[in-house]
Amino acid sequence: MEPILIYDTTLRDGTQGENINFTADEKLKIAMRLDEMGIHYIEGGWPGSNPRDIRFFDLAKRERFKSARITAFGSTRKPGIDAADDPNLKAILNSDTPAAAIFGKSWPLHVQSIMDNTLEENLAMIADSVAFLKSNGREVIYDAEHFFDGFKDAPDYAVNTLVAAFEAGADFIVLCDTNGGTLPHEVESITQSVTQNLKSRFGSRRELKLGIHTHNDCGMAAANAISAINCGAVMVHGTINGYGERCGNADLTTIIPILSDKMNRPCIPKKKLCGLKSLSRYVSETANNVPLNTRPFVGRSAFAHKGGIHVSAIMKDSRAYEHINPELVGNQRRVLMSDLAGKSNVEYKAKEMGVNLCANGCDSKAIVAAIKQMEDEGYQFDVADGSFQIMLEKFTEQFKPLFDLESFRVTIEKDKNFPCSAHATIKISVGDTHEITAAEGLGPVSALDNALRKALGNFYPDLDTMQLVDFKVRVVDGCDGTEAKVRVFIESRDQDQIWSTVGVSEDIIEASWEALADSFQFKLAKEAKQSRKPSKNGKAEDLKLGWSMSCSA
Amino acid sequence: MEPILIYDTTLRDGTQGENINFTADEKLKIAMRLDEMGIHYIEGGWPGSNPRDIRFFDLAKRERFKSARITAFGSTRKPGIDAADDPNLKAILNSDTPAAAIFGKSWPLHVQSIMDNTLEENLAMIADSVAFLKSNGREVIYDAEHFFDGFKDAPDYAVNTLVAAFEAGADFIVLCDTNGGTLPHEVESITQSVTQNLKSRFGSRRELKLGIHTHNDCGMAAANAISAINCGAVMVHGTINGYGERCGNADLTTIIPILSDKMNRPCIPKKKLCGLKSLSRYVSETANNVPLNTRPFVGRSAFAHKGGIHVSAIMKDSRAYEHINPELVGNQRRVLMSDLAGKSNVEYKAKEMGVNLCANGCDSKAIVAAIKQMEDEGYQFDVADGSFQIMLEKFTEQFKPLFDLESFRVTIEKDKNFPCSAHATIKISVGDTHEITAAEGLGPVSALDNALRKALGNFYPDLDTMQLVDFKVRVVDGCDGTEAKVRVFIESRDQDQIWSTVGVSEDIIEASWEALADSFQFKLAKEAKQSRKPSKNGKAEDLKLGWSMSCSA
Repeated sequence: MEPILIYDTTLRDGTQGENINFTADEKLKIAMRLDEMGIHYIEGGWPGSNPRDIRFFDLAKRERFKSARITAFGSTRKPGIDAADDPNLKAILNSDTPAAAIFGKSWPLHVQSIMDNTLEENLAMIADSVAFLKSNGREVIYDAEHFFDGFKDAPDYAVNTLVAAFEAGADFIVLCDTNGGTLPHEVESITQSVTQNLKSRFGSRRELKLGIHTHNDCGMAAANAISAINCGAVMVHGTINGYGERCGNADLTTIIPILSDKMNRPCIPKKKLCGLKSLSRYVSETANNVPLNTRPFVGRSAFAHKGGIHVSAIMKDSRAYEHINPELVGNQRRVLMSDLAGKSNVEYKAKEMGVNLCANGCDSKAIVAAIKQMEDEGYQFDVADGSFQIMLEKFTEQFKPLFDLESFRVTIEKDKNFPCSAHATIKISVGDTHEITAAEGLGPVSALDNALRKALGNFYPDLDTMQLVDFKVRVVDGCDGTEAKVRVFIESRDQDQIWSTVGVSEDIIEASWEALADSFQFKLAKEAKQSRKPSKNGKAEDLKLGWSMSCSA
Repeated sequence: MEPILIYDTTLRDGTQGENINFTADEKLKIAMRLDEMGIHYIEGGWPGSNPRDIRFFDLAKRERFKSARITAFGSTRKPGIDAADDPNLKAILNSDTPAAAIFGKSWPLHVQSIMDNTLEENLAMIADSVAFLKSNGREVIYDAEHFFDGFKDAPDYAVNTLVAAFEAGADFIVLCDTNGGTLPHEVESITQSVTQNLKSRFGSRRELKLGIHTHNDCGMAAANAISAINCGAVMVHGTINGYGERCGNADLTTIIPILSDKMNRPCIPKKKLCGLKSLSRYVSETANNVPLNTRPFVGRSAFAHKGGIHVSAIMKDSRAYEHINPELVGNQRRVLMSDLAGKSNVEYKAKEMGVNLCANGCDSKAIVAAIKQMEDEGYQFDVADGSFQIMLEKFTEQFKPLFDLESFRVTIEKDKNFPCSAHATIKISVGDTHEITAAEGLGPVSALDNALRKALGNFYPDLDTMQLVDFKVRVVDGCDGTEAKVRVFIESRDQDQIWSTVGVSEDIIEASWEALADSFQFKLAKEAKQSRKPSKNGKAEDLKLGWSMSCSA
């Protein structure tokens, strides 16, 4: 079967989604992950529209991408000027990407009523802009905005806009369901009609490569994309997690496994598929958005079984209630309200971390029950490997704390004419020795962090290599505001590892302390283990980067 | 066009979803709302499987439903016994509903490997069970479980199971994609093939009424349902908000407006459509699940516009970027503020908020530039309407603070043997009066909240109606850990409105204070406006609950 090119627009159309914002640095990190996954095109942003996107393209220039072509996005030239004078097209060229995507108008409503333009000038704008980018050596993806709406209204004109782009040399013609109001059977008939029309005009003179760009306003984004692919489209646009304006774009985490596994259409390399859930998580964590549990393929509930009949059936044959093997996309089966599946998860995880579950007569069933209890209280261990390891060690009485908290006090003061000041006093014990000290910081967590470092510094000099790299807080139940529990995630790193820890409390500072203390305990335990070992290739090394990179695919 | 019957299984299949649980009373209330909406069938539960469902049917017996037929669910009889002796079928009869739904096996894998049954006995179980319910005067809906998987594996046998149900008198034959692994083009070809086969067997002797029951494991539940309807199915199964096992069932809040508005297929009465968003909210509130903002048609973001180009276009013609009129389903347009926004977003938003941009010689271009600057520093206004309004008022020199901060001090103390304690001292001024007070709280933000309420209480007695409902924190640049800036979002509500505010600082407590102070300023300004008006039909009233109850249907 003919391969399908995956065109990711998480960094451009995805950021039109409510609450989806990335810094230029975050964009770059996501782009590297997309490239790692084998995505073919990464639309990085609209350099003509904002400075952050220009910064992204500057950063991207310095990187080498293995499979992805970085693409700059923009619109056709303004009416009445030369393409070469258009600031938007110039910004695309300046971003120095191998590929450029430009959108043009297909729908007379937009051309005439919204843009106050003529139908003829619109065709000229499309042709000129495509030709200009082609003459500057760019691969050109032409997005026919509102194509389906335009076609329903004025089919001949809509097709003429495609002809203008195609004749001017566009490499891909992308049919866009910009408003997301089109249904799969309409996509099918319109795509067929367009293909016939263009093929009859151009015959075999030049290969027509169609793409499809869909939105989810009718819950049909993925279905519409598949529908167009069934009618011959060879490029599909979408975003990770379906992020995008209004109801979002077509979700690549759905489309990729459907193409690869169900339709046998080559897209990303098959062996990369198992990185899909991790990629989905990476993007949602970067956006600080709660991952959607019910997301097809990659959601936490996607292979979760609750009904008793279902659970006993899948234990005989997983096909009974699972449409694919969850591991194919890096996901896993979960059995709700049953210790069985949990037990094997815990055993699997403990083995991975080098924790002996059988030590001190512990049994994994009791640990599973305890985890369930903690998760009920708001803990979440799937993205907090560091705390999970410490918890396993505590349960099996193998945890050897390298310091203990005696007490702390944090004070934050604010006067209307000055910025806040924060300072922390901390008392810890290391073995039989007590240490009390104080520090200030830019905020309470920073003050606590500084005080703890200062107190520990006398005992453990290696802490300089460790730093906190991320800090995230969320109300766990979201219904009682400040009186609900908060969950704090802290991500830390040193020269060779990243680890995450979690804390939960009604008090944000107590939750932060818990995550902070776990992070330091994890680091100190790691140092202690390494100093006992001849080389640095120990257990901790294997865990490197935890969930985020566990499948290097 | 032939009407489509809407079959709701929120109360049965919906409760298989992770985190979806209803009491019998809650089920009854939801059933009444579904009936009010004009839904044709309400599957209330599985009386043979749990006592709560028996209680629901007992409660339902005492109610009068206007349009809906309450339906009891169960499976075909057990192997080797008489249908009349089957406890499950007896429980269905005892629930005294006009309609009964039973599922049977279509797939030899299930019959033989999972159930350890013979193919023949399975056919007899289907026929006997349907005939038994029919002879007891029930309308019978036969659910062919795993029909599509069964058909792909063994088409003749799968069709024979339908024949058994149909010959025994089933009123509806429902094709189920139980595992959710089927794609729309497969649904189409299989449904066509089944229809042809059955019609050629039975001719016009008895009308064949097909139904469709789909799951969302491929993100195709709604598309698959529409596909079957296009092939002649006259009944569609689904749940409100798509709740259901794993990735959920077909979402009726998507399917109903598609049928009614886009396909012109009568289903529920047209005039009830505007109650859809409110119904969706009612069910998610009852399940205590956060409503999905991006849910097609009924989500909070479904008609939210962020890009500047989009906003200026919809101001000319809403069709430009809206596939339907949001009011049709009881939803509303929202314009978001962000650095992607342009002048027209600001102008639209200002008008909506009743802020005069031209006051004091301000121009909206300067405001856009200032917003972009603030967003660069970490602010984000698209989800912080409250702070945005205050900021607009500040820029145009129309902001009249209802209190000013003089200073605060927050202390958090922790001893190893006790939970954290937090207390706050605050000094504010209202006009010329100063107020200093202190309060404690479950955490520092809670303590500040309590102290501020206490301090303001002497001046503004109405604050009891206001509470904080959500609190979110993230590091803005994600790279410098505790030394980076954090952004705090606070969502607040009172009896008739929800609003969000934002704060940014290197200190989490200062950022929280900023968001908290904005929230109180917003609330107090709103109260002040209302008290100046003769009636309550002012601005705040127009916004009343927006989403939840704007159309009582």
